[in-house]
Amino acid sequence: MVSYETKLRVRYSETDKMGYVYYGNYPQYYEVGRVELMRSLGFSYRHLEDMGIMMPVQNLSVRYLRPAYYDDELTIKTMIREMPASRIHFEYEIYNIEGQIVNTGEAVLGFINAETRRPMRPPKEIMDTFKQYF
Amino acid sequence: MVSYETKLRVRYSETDKMGYVYYGNYPQYYEVGRVELMRSLGFSYRHLEDMGIMMPVQNLSVRYLRPAYYDDELTIKTMIREMPASRIHFEYEIYNIEGQIVNTGEAVLGFINAETRRPMRPPKEIMDTFKQYF
Amino acid sequence: MVSYETKLRVRYSETDKMGYVYYGNYPQYYEVGRVELMRSLGFSYRHLEDMGIMMPVQNLSVRYLRPAYYDDELTIKTMIREMPASRIHFEYEIYNIEGQIVNTGEAVLGFINAETRRPMRPPKEIMDTFKQYF
Amino acid sequence: MVSYETKLRVRYSETDKMGYVYYGNYPQYYEVGRVELMRSLGFSYRHLEDMGIMMPVQNLSVRYLRPAYYDDELTIKTMIREMPASRIHFEYEIYNIEGQIVNTGEAVLGFINAETRRPMRPPKEIMDTFKQYF
Repeated sequence: MVSYETKLRVRYSETDKMGYVYYGNYPQYYEVGRVELMRSLGFSYRHLEDMGIMMPVQNLSVRYLRPAYYDDELTIKTMIREMPASRIHFEYEIYNIEGQIVNTGEAVLGFINAETRRPMRPPKEIMDTFKQYF
Repeated sequence: MVSYETKLRVRYSETDKMGYVYYGNYPQYYEVGRVELMRSLGFSYRHLEDMGIMMPVQNLSVRYLRPAYYDDELTIKTMIREMPASRIHFEYEIYNIEGQIVNTGEAVLGFINAETRRPMRPPKEIMDTFKQYF
Repeated sequence: MVSYETKLRVRYSETDKMGYVYYGNYPQYYEVGRVELMRSLGFSYRHLEDMGIMMPVQNLSVRYLRPAYYDDELTIKTMIREMPASRIHFEYEIYNIEGQIVNTGEAVLGFINAETRRPMRPPKEIMDTFKQYF
Repeated sequence: MVSYETKLRVRYSETDKMGYVYYGNYPQYYEVGRVELMRSLGFSYRHLEDMGIMMPVQNLSVRYLRPAYYDDELTIKTMIREMPASRIHFEYEIYNIEGQIVNTGEAVLGFINAETRRPMRPPKEIMDTFKQYF
């Protein structure tokens, strides 16, 4: 299993008139989580795109358990539990400063060739790195 | 079953550097879909909130099938297949102008009292309206 | 002078915890306004980009006069008062349903070559169209 | 003069199909800058709102000088050059990692009473703090 924690602070723009973080902003937080997990393994997603590899999201799910508020410092815990194959399955848990869980989620990402925009096999460099963890 | 179709045009701000609509923007489109479905039944979500009723999202899932692009005119089809009880279960299908499906999704919303921020029963007025459809 | 009016409805995601449209969302509305003004003249901004022309914003200013609220139907009035040269100067006025002015703004856009990412002269086709109005 | 620097990393969601940070996202970055400047002086904007004080933006201007890109680490330099009175005038400079200026901007904020939504005098506590700097 690979796991990584990132912190971020809720911006005013991310709240809605309910006073909560808008439900549609969490996928953005999840993206921050997985980019930082990848970086912790030595992969820059920016660099992957520069090499012609794109990783679009194929599936997303979120279970909202508790609201988050303006200026909250949230912890995004991102996990990969299974060895990635043609897809990477990310799991998420977001916690507030009291350690309460805000929501949990999952996202499945594939690999596509930026030029042809068709599915491709994951780069060997990435798979070799993951093999060290599974 | 209740069903409603809304159209919207993809804004530049909603695209990302892949050239696609950012995956995290679809929950916003889904929200537009359900607000317009509710309006078609005679309910303004704004008015509900003014009456002290909030409907936060409890669960969300999206299955991304095909990208959407800048300036695309998308059709958001929103459906309620089961008589709502303490929750409303919305289903979504987004289509592009060629009639191809872009993604499908689901969102479950509950009812909470805006003052106490605790779960409440759905307003009778809403339930009576739904009864006409199921 | 060229002038065009577009309507849009405020989305929940565009509000903030003050209950107003977040101040940083108006540039997005302005963009919708200028894209629709261009479309009314026969130019699709999407098509311009496909031809290798990009129009980045060089200057923006907004004067906020009155808040807008969730579900408000806003009118975006977009104007070009002077014959464009190497830049196009757009002026904006946003009105609510009561006809009250919400804010006014300006944006100056240049033309750049998408490949070289360097300034370019505006396409003759566009200039010829503008000449009919000034 | 009061000055404060905050860093943030550009998110994928903040880019657009040009591959740049969308021009309308900078006001959000400016907001992060001024909130952190206020925090550095001992004021939490969240706390101000809890006390019934809101600070809506009255004027905004941005001069875009150079694009910023996905994953860039940007420095938001926020400055107050004049002793605030009924308004606070914030100035901004955003720099990329090479120290190049990305854009400059200004925002003027007023004070309003959250309950009456009418202009109010700035809290004495804030003015006393500012007096130490001017």
